[in-house]
Amino acid sequence: MQLLLKRLVEQNRHYTKYGKVANYIPELGKMDPDKLGIVIVDTGGKIYRAGDYDLKFTLQSMSKPIVLLLALMDNGEETVFKKVGKEPTGDPFNSMRKLETLSPPKPLNPMINAGAITVTSLIKGKDSKEKFERILDMVRKISNNPRLNINMDVYLSEKKTGDRNRAIAYFLKDVGILEGDVEEALDLYFKQCSIEVTCEDIANIGMFLANQGIDRKTGKVIAPKYLTQIVKTFMVTCGMYDESGEFAINVGVPSKSGVSGGIISAVPNRMGIGVIGPALNAKGNSIAGVKLLMDLSRELKLSIF
Amino acid sequence: MQLLLKRLVEQNRHYTKYGKVANYIPELGKMDPDKLGIVIVDTGGKIYRAGDYDLKFTLQSMSKPIVLLLALMDNGEETVFKKVGKEPTGDPFNSMRKLETLSPPKPLNPMINAGAITVTSLIKGKDSKEKFERILDMVRKISNNPRLNINMDVYLSEKKTGDRNRAIAYFLKDVGILEGDVEEALDLYFKQCSIEVTCEDIANIGMFLANQGIDRKTGKVIAPKYLTQIVKTFMVTCGMYDESGEFAINVGVPSKSGVSGGIISAVPNRMGIGVIGPALNAKGNSIAGVKLLMDLSRELKLSIF
Amino acid sequence: MQLLLKRLVEQNRHYTKYGKVANYIPELGKMDPDKLGIVIVDTGGKIYRAGDYDLKFTLQSMSKPIVLLLALMDNGEETVFKKVGKEPTGDPFNSMRKLETLSPPKPLNPMINAGAITVTSLIKGKDSKEKFERILDMVRKISNNPRLNINMDVYLSEKKTGDRNRAIAYFLKDVGILEGDVEEALDLYFKQCSIEVTCEDIANIGMFLANQGIDRKTGKVIAPKYLTQIVKTFMVTCGMYDESGEFAINVGVPSKSGVSGGIISAVPNRMGIGVIGPALNAKGNSIAGVKLLMDLSRELKLSIF
Amino acid sequence: MQLLLKRLVEQNRHYTKYGKVANYIPELGKMDPDKLGIVIVDTGGKIYRAGDYDLKFTLQSMSKPIVLLLALMDNGEETVFKKVGKEPTGDPFNSMRKLETLSPPKPLNPMINAGAITVTSLIKGKDSKEKFERILDMVRKISNNPRLNINMDVYLSEKKTGDRNRAIAYFLKDVGILEGDVEEALDLYFKQCSIEVTCEDIANIGMFLANQGIDRKTGKVIAPKYLTQIVKTFMVTCGMYDESGEFAINVGVPSKSGVSGGIISAVPNRMGIGVIGPALNAKGNSIAGVKLLMDLSRELKLSIF
Repeated sequence: MQLLLKRLVEQNRHYTKYGKVANYIPELGKMDPDKLGIVIVDTGGKIYRAGDYDLKFTLQSMSKPIVLLLALMDNGEETVFKKVGKEPTGDPFNSMRKLETLSPPKPLNPMINAGAITVTSLIKGKDSKEKFERILDMVRKISNNPRLNINMDVYLSEKKTGDRNRAIAYFLKDVGILEGDVEEALDLYFKQCSIEVTCEDIANIGMFLANQGIDRKTGKVIAPKYLTQIVKTFMVTCGMYDESGEFAINVGVPSKSGVSGGIISAVPNRMGIGVIGPALNAKGNSIAGVKLLMDLSRELKLSIF
Repeated sequence: MQLLLKRLVEQNRHYTKYGKVANYIPELGKMDPDKLGIVIVDTGGKIYRAGDYDLKFTLQSMSKPIVLLLALMDNGEETVFKKVGKEPTGDPFNSMRKLETLSPPKPLNPMINAGAITVTSLIKGKDSKEKFERILDMVRKISNNPRLNINMDVYLSEKKTGDRNRAIAYFLKDVGILEGDVEEALDLYFKQCSIEVTCEDIANIGMFLANQGIDRKTGKVIAPKYLTQIVKTFMVTCGMYDESGEFAINVGVPSKSGVSGGIISAVPNRMGIGVIGPALNAKGNSIAGVKLLMDLSRELKLSIF
Repeated sequence: MQLLLKRLVEQNRHYTKYGKVANYIPELGKMDPDKLGIVIVDTGGKIYRAGDYDLKFTLQSMSKPIVLLLALMDNGEETVFKKVGKEPTGDPFNSMRKLETLSPPKPLNPMINAGAITVTSLIKGKDSKEKFERILDMVRKISNNPRLNINMDVYLSEKKTGDRNRAIAYFLKDVGILEGDVEEALDLYFKQCSIEVTCEDIANIGMFLANQGIDRKTGKVIAPKYLTQIVKTFMVTCGMYDESGEFAINVGVPSKSGVSGGIISAVPNRMGIGVIGPALNAKGNSIAGVKLLMDLSRELKLSIF
Repeated sequence: MQLLLKRLVEQNRHYTKYGKVANYIPELGKMDPDKLGIVIVDTGGKIYRAGDYDLKFTLQSMSKPIVLLLALMDNGEETVFKKVGKEPTGDPFNSMRKLETLSPPKPLNPMINAGAITVTSLIKGKDSKEKFERILDMVRKISNNPRLNINMDVYLSEKKTGDRNRAIAYFLKDVGILEGDVEEALDLYFKQCSIEVTCEDIANIGMFLANQGIDRKTGKVIAPKYLTQIVKTFMVTCGMYDESGEFAINVGVPSKSGVSGGIISAVPNRMGIGVIGPALNAKGNSIAGVKLLMDLSRELKLSIF
């Protein structure tokens, strides 16, 4: 396995040249585009690492399924899905135009920004500080890493340049989907996106989802199984932006990408995978990371279909 | 003429019952839906008044052609139309979806909110205060009413509930159309919308446009003729929201409506007309005001076509 | 005047180089892109000609206002506008997407293809042959040219390659806007587009509209004045495809263009203008023809605004 | 199992009252809305039947994954996916508007009508007759029912009323996606939709897909495994129209519905399921059939997530 991972990383590293590091958040633009790394954690607890697996990066959109899970635990399915739909969109992650034609104008799913900001606004807590602590606590728990924290530079950069997300949030406020303070919801969203991790952290998160919400080490139920299934279903139908359909065909594993170049994958009952490769393709996914997962899925027959 | 106006007001007043006062800005919702009034100022300086002509109301979207004129005088055609287009849209005034599909994503025209906010951001001035004073000064000058001022209750109400306009403005900022501070541009926009007028004030504004930018009393050129023609053209192609085409057929006079229920009309070289009727139809235009203008246009053969 | 026209043609001819002859209808693609011609007919009956004024070309979209007028005379306003709207769209002439989001799904105006095909289907006649004869008869009458006829090569070329129009027509049939046989309506539409004219013919048509529906020579009322006003209003708000707003600002005269490169203009109570220049800009209008009309409007102060 | 199925059918039958039989194809409108039936075929060859399992109905959109599989076998992945995409849309199955905004304008996936008609046009055969025979032969083979045939009344009804599909096909022809004769492609498409089956037939088809393309009885490879995986992936991401996301969460099994009220489900390596329930919900899926599959999935833990 170790050898396989090493070979696949080397064989796919050249793809990094065809992608670009996200630059709409200036701080993200500083990442090294040539990097490619992977960590796999299996149900038996074995860990395999290859390439630039020790690179640090932020969760970005990879925070969406985690916060969705917490929001579902906080509010129940009915409340959450009154505010956000369950359907893939075929539009880019920051698109707003469907919102205008839909009646009710609720975001089509929790993986696009409009849906994710709405979900974040549903997190419980007596104030903004407590809400974020609950999110951070959840991420720490399911990644088995109590030292995780926010990358302040990225957070401030997001906050400063997040005009599209502001546009989305004010639109949602106007149509009554987003309740409460808009800037507070946005601040919380920018914070969740800025939590800093490594491949091993997100591989553990993948493992947690693959293991149906049960802590692999302690056997403790952290989240109800049926809620982790919901989250994994969204990862298949809309986890890879408007490339989700193609990824489902080529890889066939519930996954969620972020514009930092990270990808969390959860192979049901088998393994969690964490990938990093900051150079992105036009859809916003790690260009080499996707290729690496394609090869891996073929070699290990990981597709759930 | 006096008798004609009186008859037409009475004969169209019952239409007010089929409309609704705008309520998305709470302060506007307090207007009396049964009112209907009109003032005509002709090139000879004669003034005719009928119905509830002394009602006070705010400019709202009627400020758009005025601020456009000032922005054109401040920046020239080229600069303004680099930021905003010249085409009617067929979409509601607060629609954003076209912005997403267009390349470049500039607002289609200066009469929809996205275009108007952009235009407002181009007004010159050393600070926010001076910019508004220049707008207010312009409105006072062309309405021949130096006492005009802001209605603070309406302004604060707009500012508090203007989430859709905020969404639009942050979107424009994100795509690079809106430069400078977003909240400042919005504040200026909310202020221009909140300038309080009567039918006579806006009839004078209509007269000023009908008179090609020349002050009727002093003969002084306040704005270049060709810029007032541009403004009147926009009033025909997109001055009445997504009812502009129908209004052009039925009335055929350059006009601009606002959600307060006011309508400014400029009959080239003949007269300026100011109408108020707070009850609106589904498109956001004064329901009885439009009917009144239809009758008036037919009686006086006002259509420019 | 003669000299002015000659000068303006020569001074604008170089613009033909920046445009392209329409090639989606193969037969149209054979036109000479360097040509530019103009004819003006004034109310006094004087005729001025310059450039390639004797070039033959087909009506294409210039047939739309004429057939609209006939349909209004055949059916009355109410029936026609139950099937087709009065609003400009901001979309290209062959766009279908608005149809899908509108409720009812009626075409936004009679100048886009969807609206024009619908209007054509409303022409009265006991069979397909009589319907076309009535259209041709109308065109002959208002152009004062009883010898006008169809260009069979263009007609057959349109019919063979009109798949987008077929898509539009079947869509309209499906939603219940288009009644009767789809292929028959399309055939009639292709025929009206293929009527062959010269600049003088369309200048006469412009004159007829400028003259409010009255035959300049005989003084006979061919169409009711208010219907010709409706037609001219559409020519302003949507006569130049999605460049109508800009054209209204720059020229300010009710006009209708066709992809053959022709433009009909009607200056109310003053003159009719016919222009030909087969090289088109990106919006589908004669690139040099539009420039020529801009200069002419400025020189003769033709803008109605 | 037999008892379970019986219980679930009875417990969900009342939902049929809340749905409506499709009536846009008149012949489909004649189906009995109260019916609900199911057949399960497992890998061991055991067959379980309950409710109105012997009802006859037509494949409709259930033909899409089958013809896609044949087209992939005929042309290879590359050729097929040059013409049609892999992404879910979030739009209704007969929507055309995305086609207009996409560049290239290829249908987003093979499960919406635009994509399916394109796929059908790629089926090989020396003439129209042979093409259909190859499709019918494929359906017969994978349903283990050599007696399957077309329902002529439904076919003629589809052909007569298929104006929306005609609009889609002519649009695809115009933009160069659909090659060859439009009416021939449509005729083939109407025929594939009109193949008449029972629940057992489609349960066998589900079984064939669950069994990775291998004939359960003979062990013969009818289609390559990786192509059946592609087909099943599409069934998850876009098999249930714009309710696919919700269905994936609630049932979690690759499935394809048709407006006849049928649903084919393929539980990888476990079973094929065929359901019929002609009363549809607003999205076009069998209203009671979906509920029945939800219960079944929960009882037997069928979700692949």
